[in-house]
Amino acid sequence: MDQPSDPITAAILVIGDEILSGRTKDKNIGTIADFLTAAGIDLREVRIVPDEAAMIVEAVNALRARYTYLFTTGGIGPTHDDITADCVAQAFGVGIDIDERARAMLLERHKPEDLNEARLRMARIPFGADLIPNAVSKAPGFRIGNVHVMAGVPSIMQAMLDAVAPTLKGGAAMISETIEAVGLPEGQYAGELGEIARARPAVSIGSYPALTPEGFRNRIVVRSRDAQALAEAKAVVEALVARLTT
Amino acid sequence: MDQPSDPITAAILVIGDEILSGRTKDKNIGTIADFLTAAGIDLREVRIVPDEAAMIVEAVNALRARYTYLFTTGGIGPTHDDITADCVAQAFGVGIDIDERARAMLLERHKPEDLNEARLRMARIPFGADLIPNAVSKAPGFRIGNVHVMAGVPSIMQAMLDAVAPTLKGGAAMISETIEAVGLPEGQYAGELGEIARARPAVSIGSYPALTPEGFRNRIVVRSRDAQALAEAKAVVEALVARLTT
Repeated sequence: MDQPSDPITAAILVIGDEILSGRTKDKNIGTIADFLTAAGIDLREVRIVPDEAAMIVEAVNALRARYTYLFTTGGIGPTHDDITADCVAQAFGVGIDIDERARAMLLERHKPEDLNEARLRMARIPFGADLIPNAVSKAPGFRIGNVHVMAGVPSIMQAMLDAVAPTLKGGAAMISETIEAVGLPEGQYAGELGEIARARPAVSIGSYPALTPEGFRNRIVVRSRDAQALAEAKAVVEALVARLTT
Repeated sequence: MDQPSDPITAAILVIGDEILSGRTKDKNIGTIADFLTAAGIDLREVRIVPDEAAMIVEAVNALRARYTYLFTTGGIGPTHDDITADCVAQAFGVGIDIDERARAMLLERHKPEDLNEARLRMARIPFGADLIPNAVSKAPGFRIGNVHVMAGVPSIMQAMLDAVAPTLKGGAAMISETIEAVGLPEGQYAGELGEIARARPAVSIGSYPALTPEGFRNRIVVRSRDAQALAEAKAVVEALVARLTT
């Protein structure tokens, strides 16, 4: 990956009624978030929408215009509620039809006589898109413009993400340090921590409270793309926590 | 809860850099989704945004205009990155200041001399809002218009959701039936399942593939607010799966 100086940004669009009903608990957001952070790409926004064309098209167009990359998950299987490919084609204003490269991939798994109309839906790819292969189910995702369309099943999504990774521009990786503030409520360090943060624009500082049966076990996370600035901020925060704890 | 005939809808707005960086894996979306489904409220959209005022204000205004209810999580603690209350005030165009009811709640937990400036930030409530009490940390959330502002820590969020529940209008509860399609790939039933779904507008049918080491273990979920329509659709889907499996 090369290292441009402008931040590289991304959004995730999760598509599926089953996530909104609570029946399925999403696992892909966390996986993609971890992957992007490691790649130096800023995940800036996530949306979850139902299997409804108008909402999918609107979200695709809003997010692809705003960020370097958009990653979608879900809605590319063979059933009637799998409408993501059609919606992405509509968002880009391009046609969609069975793609011979995608058909060939499906034939690696299915006998020709089993490649029925429903399964062939998985070979419907918007015109001008590149395929994203996946070894798990063979049914491909695709990339069109800055939009990466991936499966919702986590193991298949992961295979597609692995295939996409080498094609992405990464930024300078965000590095982070965590300072544990055990037994120290946020309210005790919040004022001074805010001053430390305001004085250091190259560093992002977050405080994440966790309540355990033994009391507070908060974490203060210091993040930066600049290792030296990070080390300095970490030392200052550690000194603050040590002073308040003793 | 009364049972109006118009669907009652909702959105969730998750606020926090730590979710987008992958450092914290969100658990609140699934909890709220389950709660809303049980209450007969349609969760229609979820967004996750960073701790940035412009993005929070924009999302609050987009989502509160579109749905019956908006639930936000995160960003109401005492630290400098907790800006949700100010952003919600800005979205509604109202002022914000320390609320005496909220200060009294904080005093249930903190001695007056410990109620420093940082902790008092948690008593800053937009004008005109009702408080959402929470027994876990005492720091309240609040409701203004149709927007419910809750904590990000799951145990505190849950306490606030419990407090909010009796105030919400519920719809006719969505009921669902699940048909297991074991060893049957989606592509084999997708065509006929689509026909079954298209013929039954009162019923929503989804197919959720799961890949196990033993092969496909898919679930077909049939959902409706009409028990009779649900039973009929379930029987038809079961007959389809039985026919294709044997």
